[in-house]
Amino acid sequence: MEVSIIMGSISDQPIMEKATEVLQELDIGYEVRAISAHRSIDFLFHYIGQFSQRGFRVIIAGAGGAAHLPGVIASKTLLPVIGVPIKTATLEGLDSLLSIVQMPKGVPVATVGINNAANAALLAARILALQDDGISKKLASYIKEMEKKILTQDINKGIKQ
Amino acid sequence: MEVSIIMGSISDQPIMEKATEVLQELDIGYEVRAISAHRSIDFLFHYIGQFSQRGFRVIIAGAGGAAHLPGVIASKTLLPVIGVPIKTATLEGLDSLLSIVQMPKGVPVATVGINNAANAALLAARILALQDDGISKKLASYIKEMEKKILTQDINKGIKQ
Amino acid sequence: MEVSIIMGSISDQPIMEKATEVLQELDIGYEVRAISAHRSIDFLFHYIGQFSQRGFRVIIAGAGGAAHLPGVIASKTLLPVIGVPIKTATLEGLDSLLSIVQMPKGVPVATVGINNAANAALLAARILALQDDGISKKLASYIKEMEKKILTQDINKGIKQ
Amino acid sequence: MEVSIIMGSISDQPIMEKATEVLQELDIGYEVRAISAHRSIDFLFHYIGQFSQRGFRVIIAGAGGAAHLPGVIASKTLLPVIGVPIKTATLEGLDSLLSIVQMPKGVPVATVGINNAANAALLAARILALQDDGISKKLASYIKEMEKKILTQDINKGIKQ
Amino acid sequence: MEVSIIMGSISDQPIMEKATEVLQELDIGYEVRAISAHRSIDFLFHYIGQFSQRGFRVIIAGAGGAAHLPGVIASKTLLPVIGVPIKTATLEGLDSLLSIVQMPKGVPVATVGINNAANAALLAARILALQDDGISKKLASYIKEMEKKILTQDINKGIKQ
Amino acid sequence: MEVSIIMGSISDQPIMEKATEVLQELDIGYEVRAISAHRSIDFLFHYIGQFSQRGFRVIIAGAGGAAHLPGVIASKTLLPVIGVPIKTATLEGLDSLLSIVQMPKGVPVATVGINNAANAALLAARILALQDDGISKKLASYIKEMEKKILTQDINKGIKQ
Amino acid sequence: MEVSIIMGSISDQPIMEKATEVLQELDIGYEVRAISAHRSIDFLFHYIGQFSQRGFRVIIAGAGGAAHLPGVIASKTLLPVIGVPIKTATLEGLDSLLSIVQMPKGVPVATVGINNAANAALLAARILALQDDGISKKLASYIKEMEKKILTQDINKGIKQ
Amino acid sequence: MEVSIIMGSISDQPIMEKATEVLQELDIGYEVRAISAHRSIDFLFHYIGQFSQRGFRVIIAGAGGAAHLPGVIASKTLLPVIGVPIKTATLEGLDSLLSIVQMPKGVPVATVGINNAANAALLAARILALQDDGISKKLASYIKEMEKKILTQDINKGIKQ
Repeated sequence: MEVSIIMGSISDQPIMEKATEVLQELDIGYEVRAISAHRSIDFLFHYIGQFSQRGFRVIIAGAGGAAHLPGVIASKTLLPVIGVPIKTATLEGLDSLLSIVQMPKGVPVATVGINNAANAALLAARILALQDDGISKKLASYIKEMEKKILTQDINKGIKQ
Repeated sequence: MEVSIIMGSISDQPIMEKATEVLQELDIGYEVRAISAHRSIDFLFHYIGQFSQRGFRVIIAGAGGAAHLPGVIASKTLLPVIGVPIKTATLEGLDSLLSIVQMPKGVPVATVGINNAANAALLAARILALQDDGISKKLASYIKEMEKKILTQDINKGIKQ
Repeated sequence: MEVSIIMGSISDQPIMEKATEVLQELDIGYEVRAISAHRSIDFLFHYIGQFSQRGFRVIIAGAGGAAHLPGVIASKTLLPVIGVPIKTATLEGLDSLLSIVQMPKGVPVATVGINNAANAALLAARILALQDDGISKKLASYIKEMEKKILTQDINKGIKQ
Repeated sequence: MEVSIIMGSISDQPIMEKATEVLQELDIGYEVRAISAHRSIDFLFHYIGQFSQRGFRVIIAGAGGAAHLPGVIASKTLLPVIGVPIKTATLEGLDSLLSIVQMPKGVPVATVGINNAANAALLAARILALQDDGISKKLASYIKEMEKKILTQDINKGIKQ
Repeated sequence: MEVSIIMGSISDQPIMEKATEVLQELDIGYEVRAISAHRSIDFLFHYIGQFSQRGFRVIIAGAGGAAHLPGVIASKTLLPVIGVPIKTATLEGLDSLLSIVQMPKGVPVATVGINNAANAALLAARILALQDDGISKKLASYIKEMEKKILTQDINKGIKQ
Repeated sequence: MEVSIIMGSISDQPIMEKATEVLQELDIGYEVRAISAHRSIDFLFHYIGQFSQRGFRVIIAGAGGAAHLPGVIASKTLLPVIGVPIKTATLEGLDSLLSIVQMPKGVPVATVGINNAANAALLAARILALQDDGISKKLASYIKEMEKKILTQDINKGIKQ
Repeated sequence: MEVSIIMGSISDQPIMEKATEVLQELDIGYEVRAISAHRSIDFLFHYIGQFSQRGFRVIIAGAGGAAHLPGVIASKTLLPVIGVPIKTATLEGLDSLLSIVQMPKGVPVATVGINNAANAALLAARILALQDDGISKKLASYIKEMEKKILTQDINKGIKQ
Repeated sequence: MEVSIIMGSISDQPIMEKATEVLQELDIGYEVRAISAHRSIDFLFHYIGQFSQRGFRVIIAGAGGAAHLPGVIASKTLLPVIGVPIKTATLEGLDSLLSIVQMPKGVPVATVGINNAANAALLAARILALQDDGISKKLASYIKEMEKKILTQDINKGIKQ
């Protein structure tokens, strides 16, 4: 298993499963956990302690509101941590975005767009592809497919006058 | 010592010392530390572990940007935690405010205004005054002085026409 | 009765009753009132005048828009005042948050997240627990239950691959 | 004296004196006071109680941050209250603006632009001019002068090519 | 007729009719028009030209988006102009608010809260009450009724424990 | 064909077809394409390469989120490029607006309001009308019709009292 | 003269002269005026009435705050109007941007970035180039020069390691 | 050389050189270029075409305003692209942040905090460390040093009372 996906709350699941869908398409192994940075912080640290032994190489963490999960993980591991800001019921996701991306010097979180868990998975794939030709090829063909599909939609849309 | 003041970075000192000034005026004992939630998280947890033995009753935590310090402390103690959002070089303090105040259900942070460390100290005093008549009296006379001073400023300002 | 819960408008009730639910679980006595800071200010002051005689120790005040209720109360009492910004039909709760949290030096309001009345109650419990072992124990076990429930949700979610 | 100008803090004076300059030009009597909504609320209410006896007809109130002063005054008088949001050291005046303008139904504050105390005075003049021909004429000629001055600046600027 | 209510678009009607309801309750005569500042500017100027002859004393103008209507009217009349920012499908009403309230020195618009047409009517009433005892009394009793109704709601809400 | 309409995603179609409706009313020839700036950038450049040969004179580009499409097109052509910010599921369209309008010196994008594709078409018509009397006349009569329709709505709305 | 440059206030001159510099480099004739949309609206309309007789083909209008100037001009002419939002002392230019770009359907303003008057001139040049080969060539070589200069800066910057 | 650092403008250099300082401390080879996404797009594409042959493994791209550079690069390579939003003279860096982070599904940019080029370098190091033990060790000791330095600052700050 190469990727650990952690969400701050079970309610983030509908968003975060777009990450698992992409990883499945790319045949990248992953584990999904719901562990709050604030409400189960001891277990979170216990789990982070297993990262190296479990062999994870990239961490994806999604959280909303005062979204501390990605930053707290990044302070306890030197693996790349990708943060997914989750839009909550107020403020349109701006709070989630700012509290993930504005990390202090020393502890970076690779932040993707609000609710864009698919891009978190694709960023993980780009990182893993640096040393895994299999992933590299699958990623390339995934992107080619995406581009092809988009072009097809365009041709269908083409309105001549 | 009743109050622990923790700032996320040594650069927060000019703001946070407004809290110590107020506590000194109210004769409330305190300790000031600069411990980053992200860059010295193990030591932070070690320090939080000493809270009960040290006898702290209220925690004041100031941080800027993706300001996780108050929330992380609040997840490791059941003492009241007061958060001071520090304005940094970008975004006018909005990021600091949102990443402190928008905590998930279960882990509250008592947030005061951006850079308003004096109010953090006065809030601590209000809490401590609930069971300490000395603080209660000093707080009351501090507030009375403030009110008097403000009224004096008004009289000086009074422009008759 | 230890906690007074005041909302600025009867329409805030669905949000504010999350505070009463938490206080009930923690066996903390409370009274709920709907008193507008602007539209019934004389009665508000009359009610604030009863705080000490009624024995309230913490005030929770929820309001939306130009949300002055918590700040006005805080200017008339030295008890700790907890503010709950209520999201209204415009601006996503940003106006409510800013007009509660950005109080001037001298009059702090302990602000929690937008619509997060549950956290207001938990913050009140943290304050009361400083001098009440019964509340302290109930709060600790409430938090332990919450943590346990969250960890269970995680185990259910655990997807092995 | 027809206009009462109240500022929430002595530090608002450089902004608010743009209002007094305009009123002086229009020969409208005024009184200026610095009375905090929060830090001297009892005196504020005492002062509001004198409005009718003093003969004020319009109130101008400037405040920054969680700027409750105009709204609190408007809840205690039925005179028109004009609010001037003062920009403070954080958030570019957005907090001041929202906490003045977003008043609940029933208690309007006539809000002008951030730091635009001159416009508060001109709005007061428009209101007073409804029943005072002298003010009406002075206002008209003030506006005519302003327009003339602006047109002159334009002619000076006119670059032919 | 004392009040002219102008909305920038027929789609603003559901919001603006809260103003007419209040004026009806206060027996203040009004006329309602839908005249776009941009899409029917010549007719707008023609209509503004009739203000004095028609006897209007206060203008209420509601508009959304780049909401220029209140400001344009204020530049063509010296009557007090009250602006109602209308929330449109994007940006939560922030654009409407800023393009109404941030007028340049010389041309004030008395801005009320987003979608708060009721407050625009009440502000108009406060202005008219300065010289009309009938309106003054009706306004006072309207406010008293409002306060009474709010207090009743509170008593119903009172939860004893 | 004079106008090329390009949208960043097939999902932008419901918004962008307001542009085609206007162009049809004005008898201006157009072609619509869905070509992502990011996901089909090579094809985008291929398509831009055909602009002069195809005879396009104005380009309309709509995109949401980190909306780079209009800016990228503007960097590859010297034709006027009109950008339509599309509101997506988060941030109310603010991200789309800022990433279209805030172009660096040298590469302008003529930005219209969020989701306002109709105005993009009308702006294109204004540009084309500079050298095409037919379009000029149709545009003038389209605007006259619009104004007439708005005035009719007003008359219907006219409430006398 | 092909371009009319109008600024809402003489204080906008330092920003707007970046537009004149670009137009001079491209040998495009222009006239600069300072005419407030609000404080000299009659003269503004008089001036707009001369557009066709003066032969202007594109209008550039810069304004700050509740920046109505570009929109008001666009409602009185069918020429393309380019709006330049000017940053004022508060709100970082957001108010200026929104009150220019968010125009209602029917009256488009081609908005460029905050303070980006140079881009307004370049957009005007793109529009004029559609029918003027001289401008087209000068614009192309201006852009080529800019690109060359930027590439040179890069080579100077190139740090080999 | 493992890292390519590209900035959108030579004026971004003072910010971006914080990235080069970190890479130098970690002995990671890099090349710095100033290539605008908009003003030198052909050369940008030419340069991106050399990525694989040059052996770059991670790209860091900094840009301000409508900051398209990181996204455009990410659409032309499958290497991980790290985006640094640069604060410009308006909007406090919010525009730069949103136009970098809010990329559409398919083309991720790993975004770090506004102006936080140091974190971009540290994120690059985390990625490279996955397959380079030398970097891994240097990164670990760099972080340890940082933590040590921060703890020292704390001890110096420690104020006993």
